Amino acid sequence: MLDELGLAARNHALPLEALRYPITPLGLHYLLIHFDIPAVDLASWRLEIGGRVERPLSLSFEELRSRSERTLTVTLECAGNGRALLEPRPPSQPWLTEAVGTAEWTGTPLAQLLDETGLADDALEVVFTGLDRGVQGEVVQDYERAIPVAEALRDEVLLAWVVNGEPLPPQHGYPLRVVVPGWYGMTHVKWLRAITVVAEPFRGWQQDVAYRLRASEDEQGVPVTRMLPRALMIPPGIPDFFTRRRIVEPGPCVLEGRAWSGLGAVERVEVGVDGGAWGAAELDEPLSEWAWRGWRFVWDAEPGDHELRCRAADAAGNVQPDEASWNFDGFCNNAPQRIEVSVGGAIPRDMGDDSPAAG
Amino acid sequence: MLDELGLAARNHALPLEALRYPITPLGLHYLLIHFDIPAVDLASWRLEIGGRVERPLSLSFEELRSRSERTLTVTLECAGNGRALLEPRPPSQPWLTEAVGTAEWTGTPLAQLLDETGLADDALEVVFTGLDRGVQGEVVQDYERAIPVAEALRDEVLLAWVVNGEPLPPQHGYPLRVVVPGWYGMTHVKWLRAITVVAEPFRGWQQDVAYRLRASEDEQGVPVTRMLPRALMIPPGIPDFFTRRRIVEPGPCVLEGRAWSGLGAVERVEVGVDGGAWGAAELDEPLSEWAWRGWRFVWDAEPGDHELRCRAADAAGNVQPDEASWNFDGFCNNAPQRIEVSVGGAIPRDMGDDSPAAG
Repeated sequence: MLDELGLAARNHALPLEALRYPITPLGLHYLLIHFDIPAVDLASWRLEIGGRVERPLSLSFEELRSRSERTLTVTLECAGNGRALLEPRPPSQPWLTEAVGTAEWTGTPLAQLLDETGLADDALEVVFTGLDRGVQGEVVQDYERAIPVAEALRDEVLLAWVVNGEPLPPQHGYPLRVVVPGWYGMTHVKWLRAITVVAEPFRGWQQDVAYRLRASEDEQGVPVTRMLPRALMIPPGIPDFFTRRRIVEPGPCVLEGRAWSGLGAVERVEVGVDGGAWGAAELDEPLSEWAWRGWRFVWDAEPGDHELRCRAADAAGNVQPDEASWNFDGFCNNAPQRIEVSVGGAIPRDMGDDSPAAG
Repeated sequence: MLDELGLAARNHALPLEALRYPITPLGLHYLLIHFDIPAVDLASWRLEIGGRVERPLSLSFEELRSRSERTLTVTLECAGNGRALLEPRPPSQPWLTEAVGTAEWTGTPLAQLLDETGLADDALEVVFTGLDRGVQGEVVQDYERAIPVAEALRDEVLLAWVVNGEPLPPQHGYPLRVVVPGWYGMTHVKWLRAITVVAEPFRGWQQDVAYRLRASEDEQGVPVTRMLPRALMIPPGIPDFFTRRRIVEPGPCVLEGRAWSGLGAVERVEVGVDGGAWGAAELDEPLSEWAWRGWRFVWDAEPGDHELRCRAADAAGNVQPDEASWNFDGFCNNAPQRIEVSVGGAIPRDMGDDSPAAG
């Protein structure tokens, strides 16, 4: 339990009210840092591109930054989002529902660098290696993940050095990180130091053991790749400090939130009250092909206690399930968010005065 | 437990390796947000200064910003830091040891505004009211805290609109917050909307019920005010992902960290290994009168498992106690930080290769 609290302290979630910002302000975007944030000296930092390429490259930060650049608005979610709501709770970073954020990432398309290096005929996957190092599953490792060559050559895959118009802060991968729009966060390797093209499936721990949907430790399981659809709601009204239960005024209450999927455009968001029928929310115009989509729904809040839920569906036909299936590592729990709300009588009006209880 | 995890997700701690930065980068400073981050429209925002003053003021942001400004480097710590290490654990935000950060805050001295308004002869305390609103202890409230007039008139008390050279981000109190150097964080009211001078002791919930050292819910207790001394260490070596246990190479190991106290300058930091005698660390020059002080200590790491501790003492004669006394709300637990370390054999060298396990 203290181990989980230690992880929850250092890995930051998006406070749900920050869903109000289409672009998440720096400091509110979720963070999952497996090991330690490395200290990086830009003068000695280099990006090495090698392996099954025709012309290996070693680039300083300035050399990299002289390449063409592109800015993309991208929603990132942790594959473990929702883990702590599974029972039993798999022991790892104990996310509830808010391990997400959307940022404007600026960098150079990876495809252009791979065009410079050329690829060997047997190139199969592209391995990203970070400067972050530690022990997981009893294996000492640099943090590493791979994607298939076809994914790496997508126009939207960036090596980013700027977020929201600012140089990457340490916690987002200074000086350089990978951005693979549509995929869960584990693939967006931070503190990038090497890109290695390989001819065999990459067997690193974070690929071969972690980030797989499996029923037990002994199973090989299925790789976690793109984000499943999810809608989140800005909790309405005002919160109770400890329980986060919401207090809402009776009457029409505008529920707002954002929804995303890495598998297809969000086509539908629905809101359910007290387990009743789902009602369609109104959708904003998409922010970008790779970012969350705003939605709103007017709820007629009647006095009493209520449970609000929301769910998203995408163009590929995926809908959030009522319950997500348990898995050994607690990935991909995209069951609908539940918000507990008390309407009306719960607010003692005499305590709700706006002026300080001044003497 | 899920309530605690919900708070731990939204309230961010400083990852301990970020102690390496003398000024905490934005996004890594600790955050404790009682209710929700409010949405603020700067065009309609005003600061109202009233109560027991001679000439009340109502200022727009531009009017406020036209006052003289000052920048101070200040360490802020949550009064609940260390709470989750008390047994039994008081149910609230479950901080371990890292609810701290140091920033450069820029704003106008409060004393100058109070000089403009003048104070009535019976002025006793200055109440700060935020725009954040919610329920705590079954009381609906705007977040409010007060300080005595003598504290409010200190040169170092600022109304800050800039942090680390940037406009305040939403989570740090945009557009304006109070900074009271030396005091725990609960006093540095964010999203400030009103300053009210009062002639009687302020009895708001966050003053009269919360932030008091008390043995039970029925006691009045003693107010929490200034930060007790505390030293923190950057955990050496590399971490295990889940337990955060450290793996360190044998041989001389430089331990580094920072120490602070709101009660007097840090005069001494000591490191203890495996419960043995305390050894003196070397201290950096102070960063500012109100900020943490860097320290280092060379430890000869011998193979095996070890426990490292550190503690600070200040010029007022306060030293971190071996154990902090339990209190009902879990405040002020400044018992020494403990870091568990494995030296040597635990690193399987064949797994520690720097290159990706490429096929």
